Amino acid sequence: MAQVYDRVALIGLGLIASSLFWAIKRGGLAGEVTGYARSDETRATAREIGLCDRVCDSVAEAVAGADLVVLCVPVGVMGAVAAEIAPHLAPGATVTDVGSVKADVIAQVGPHLPDGVHFIPGHPLAGTEHSGPRSGFAELFDNRWCLLVPVEGTDADAIARLRALWEGAGANVEEMDAEHHDLVLAVTSHAPHLIAYTMVGVADDLRRVTDSEVIKYSAAGFRDFTRIAASDPTMWRDVFLTNKDATLEILGRFTEELFALQRAIRTGDGDHLHAYFTRTRAIRRGIIEAGQDTDAPDFGRGARKP
Amino acid sequence: MAQVYDRVALIGLGLIASSLFWAIKRGGLAGEVTGYARSDETRATAREIGLCDRVCDSVAEAVAGADLVVLCVPVGVMGAVAAEIAPHLAPGATVTDVGSVKADVIAQVGPHLPDGVHFIPGHPLAGTEHSGPRSGFAELFDNRWCLLVPVEGTDADAIARLRALWEGAGANVEEMDAEHHDLVLAVTSHAPHLIAYTMVGVADDLRRVTDSEVIKYSAAGFRDFTRIAASDPTMWRDVFLTNKDATLEILGRFTEELFALQRAIRTGDGDHLHAYFTRTRAIRRGIIEAGQDTDAPDFGRGARKP
Repeated sequence: MAQVYDRVALIGLGLIASSLFWAIKRGGLAGEVTGYARSDETRATAREIGLCDRVCDSVAEAVAGADLVVLCVPVGVMGAVAAEIAPHLAPGATVTDVGSVKADVIAQVGPHLPDGVHFIPGHPLAGTEHSGPRSGFAELFDNRWCLLVPVEGTDADAIARLRALWEGAGANVEEMDAEHHDLVLAVTSHAPHLIAYTMVGVADDLRRVTDSEVIKYSAAGFRDFTRIAASDPTMWRDVFLTNKDATLEILGRFTEELFALQRAIRTGDGDHLHAYFTRTRAIRRGIIEAGQDTDAPDFGRGARKP
Repeated sequence: MAQVYDRVALIGLGLIASSLFWAIKRGGLAGEVTGYARSDETRATAREIGLCDRVCDSVAEAVAGADLVVLCVPVGVMGAVAAEIAPHLAPGATVTDVGSVKADVIAQVGPHLPDGVHFIPGHPLAGTEHSGPRSGFAELFDNRWCLLVPVEGTDADAIARLRALWEGAGANVEEMDAEHHDLVLAVTSHAPHLIAYTMVGVADDLRRVTDSEVIKYSAAGFRDFTRIAASDPTMWRDVFLTNKDATLEILGRFTEELFALQRAIRTGDGDHLHAYFTRTRAIRRGIIEAGQDTDAPDFGRGARKP
């Protein structure tokens, strides 16, 4: 794999940044990777485990001379971080991010960046329920999608280079516009996460069913929800607050459907339930066929963690 | 492992029955295992793959001389099947079932069974999204719970023997009463399944987000829902219709919580969201500590399928 950038700066050192670092190393995709995290503890951990070629104590130092800067911070602080790095960006550098919401990030970050810097928002669709600098691994992006959401008029060469980086990290890259991205993600990720969080919270609230029983007998269904609901609270708070409209729209449709199914249960309408459940089964088959999950002994998300 | 029963009859040959057969063979838990399924095709498949020592063409033949009869049919037909087997049961035989709902099954099955037959309802908390005679595997119950729900006055020796069978099949066995079982399962399994079905249905309905995109970009969250929502439609229809009250109660609490979180999103109450998500994370840790899931490369449900 050929080197794509001379120097990549990772701002924020959590699951995505640390995985990207290991993927860059695996592929030889950058000459040097610098890293910065706000917390002393995270920087100390990064130094201890060899995460980044150089861990810097300031954003200024981290982004100086970088031809790619990747913002790997929660969506809610993207604007503040952009303001902080802006004075130190090299002319001609590319700035990208890995946030789960795109329209809001563009609105936050765009105004801070100087002319001559390419801003290409991005979103790798990969993750685990783990977070922090120790949670990353080189294979996280393999065969996953990375969506690039370039604003109109973005330099084509800059886009091609960022695409090459993500492809080198194992991802399949596609481009779409920010509004469409935010709606698709509300359906496939944001609403499901809120729903999983809710169900786990309900179980926790129930005093007649003791906590230990809920945990003990969680083999079916609930266990999958808890996996989702273990994701980073700060990241997800920001996702919901910044993709508010699309998430609320999908949740509105969800409650409408749920009420219809509840009514079918209450009235004993077995045909309605059976037809509904038969239809959803086909979607699962489509996902397996699309290669986004596997039916075989786990080659999926779980098995990838080293 | 010692033999527990001379002859076990499996009525219905889907995921649970076929897994139980392979587990009985693995452990040498029964002298002979007979099997019956209503459909010609299922019986032919069972004969082809060696599922059961003897596949019978009638329930009468299957249960004749059996000291254990296991009803492995959807909850909705338990009563009809009990009526069918009753005249053929050997005196002193034990009848059990594997249904996900217990109070309704007791009401359906109990009245049909003759005096001198022990009825001990059961529920192994194990499964995959696969169904049918080919889906079983001997390890399905290993380290999972099997709940026995004996009615008052049941013979202690008969319970101990059934417990020995499930323990021989790899499960941990506990006893509880039917009403409590149905509430615990509504929380840990039934409501989560209905919610997953609903979300997958919503995604399928959305015309602005094409099916292919929903499937393609399903890496996070949604994929876990589709796994749940691929479960057997007939089984789940019956579960919701027969555990109606507990399921509707939990769904009521769920929608109440969901509305509170939606309002927090709408009003931008980040503190509420963050506190909620932090709390749910702890439940996930509890499940890992309880040994009902693993954080390591998949030793869980997925990896067990041969």
